[in-house]
Amino acid sequence: MKKVLAFDIGGTKIAYAIIDESGNFINEIIKVTTPKTSNGIYELLKTVIKGSEDEIDGVAIATAGAINNENNKIISHVGNLPEKYNELDFTSLTSKPIFLENDANAAGWAEFKLGSAKGTQNAVVLTLGTGVGSGIIVNGKLLKGKSGSAGEMHVRFGFGHNRKCTCGLWDCLETYVSGNALTTDAQIYMSPDATSYDVIRGLKENNQKAQAAFDHWQECLENALVMVCNLFDPEVVVLSGSMAQFVEYDKLQKEVNQDILTQPTELKLAKFENNAGMLGVALLLLERLK
Amino acid sequence: MKKVLAFDIGGTKIAYAIIDESGNFINEIIKVTTPKTSNGIYELLKTVIKGSEDEIDGVAIATAGAINNENNKIISHVGNLPEKYNELDFTSLTSKPIFLENDANAAGWAEFKLGSAKGTQNAVVLTLGTGVGSGIIVNGKLLKGKSGSAGEMHVRFGFGHNRKCTCGLWDCLETYVSGNALTTDAQIYMSPDATSYDVIRGLKENNQKAQAAFDHWQECLENALVMVCNLFDPEVVVLSGSMAQFVEYDKLQKEVNQDILTQPTELKLAKFENNAGMLGVALLLLERLK
Repeated sequence: MKKVLAFDIGGTKIAYAIIDESGNFINEIIKVTTPKTSNGIYELLKTVIKGSEDEIDGVAIATAGAINNENNKIISHVGNLPEKYNELDFTSLTSKPIFLENDANAAGWAEFKLGSAKGTQNAVVLTLGTGVGSGIIVNGKLLKGKSGSAGEMHVRFGFGHNRKCTCGLWDCLETYVSGNALTTDAQIYMSPDATSYDVIRGLKENNQKAQAAFDHWQECLENALVMVCNLFDPEVVVLSGSMAQFVEYDKLQKEVNQDILTQPTELKLAKFENNAGMLGVALLLLERLK
Repeated sequence: MKKVLAFDIGGTKIAYAIIDESGNFINEIIKVTTPKTSNGIYELLKTVIKGSEDEIDGVAIATAGAINNENNKIISHVGNLPEKYNELDFTSLTSKPIFLENDANAAGWAEFKLGSAKGTQNAVVLTLGTGVGSGIIVNGKLLKGKSGSAGEMHVRFGFGHNRKCTCGLWDCLETYVSGNALTTDAQIYMSPDATSYDVIRGLKENNQKAQAAFDHWQECLENALVMVCNLFDPEVVVLSGSMAQFVEYDKLQKEVNQDILTQPTELKLAKFENNAGMLGVALLLLERLK
């Protein structure tokens, strides 16, 4: 059975493990702090790859940023990683096959192949973390678009200039349904220095203001779900990321299905959490190696 | 060369013509007023089909409403057609192959095969008429979703209750970028009884208020274009429908490409106007008959 070395490269941590065709993690997942320079990241990857090059059939990398359709190059700016990270020549790391995919796309693929979207052909996996990512499956394939960067959830909600988005525009979906968005709601509904943690704690203590902040956040999420259901008509929408655990699934599924013009969908919590990116990108490469 | 009888069924008119594999209209297009009952529509279709059944290889119907993935049934409510229209058994009209598709999807397919999106693999065709329809091409195929009804442009723009949408929700994209939306803007910026026609006339006369109404409408359209480009990363976005001729293409393409996170796209006026639905659905059926 073939196996690959899979990385998940994030702004704070880099995780890696060897994964086989069945999706089994062969060894324990190792996590290290992301080096402060792009050169440091390159050297770290090279060292890790060298250490296991004899036992693997390829290297799979899930990373922030948009990845081209040849899966060998980052084609976007990557905000929370060091300067020039997006210019790294990943293909020079090893003579084995190397395969890159955007982390949210990879996580979506993991849910589609082995997780909460298994058995479907059309699914949307939204990662609700600090920001909002998506992995969208259309007819059993990842939606990539002409360049590879499709699935950017930067859709304007509203015309004012209320919430500045990391993309440079105002009032994108991300500013209303991410973890940071819940902090914004906490500051509006609770107090100027409140955070999303205060909202979650407040919910357990029946704090009315915390409830109001959460309700607004979840109403915005419902709008985002109506959007993806009307556009993609998916069999299932899967929520992953740090915020996914707080969502009221039954309530939201019912509301969404009342509001959409397409046919009813299912709303599910992701099966895989932090390891979805590594798993998904590994499965994508292993499929290509078949 | 195979040929089919193609219909375009709308709320006010039904058009039909015989179309061959090259997309040629064999005879002149005939237009009749849409009968007031669903039974009347059924009988009309039956009579027309009977008249040309010997010379055709199938019947293709572009219609309002969502069409299932088997292309033989309407699966949604259809607002501007008679009651029970959506329950008609189209397959009983003829013993020849019969094929239905949503009119905006069909128009999108016509642009993709022979029009302004020809030669691409990923394209979005937006029909800006009374409402807003879409035909979305992903990897050279129509985006249909699990049931066939994908591509509904009912995406909430803003959280207020400002503009009621035909779908029952508030402030959908359709209420900001359709022909009706321009009438709303006319009433806000010009006078309470102004319409979209007053805006268009006012533009030619350098009327400042008309310009303000149009600028707001076009700014909303830009938001819609950013959305479809960020989500689908298309090679081209094609605008069709009665409003498409008024759009400032160069200006808008430049603005959209500045704002998106995906790679630059082209913005184009549709090649086919009123006949795109008939042509597209004919081409879809003719491809299936090959």
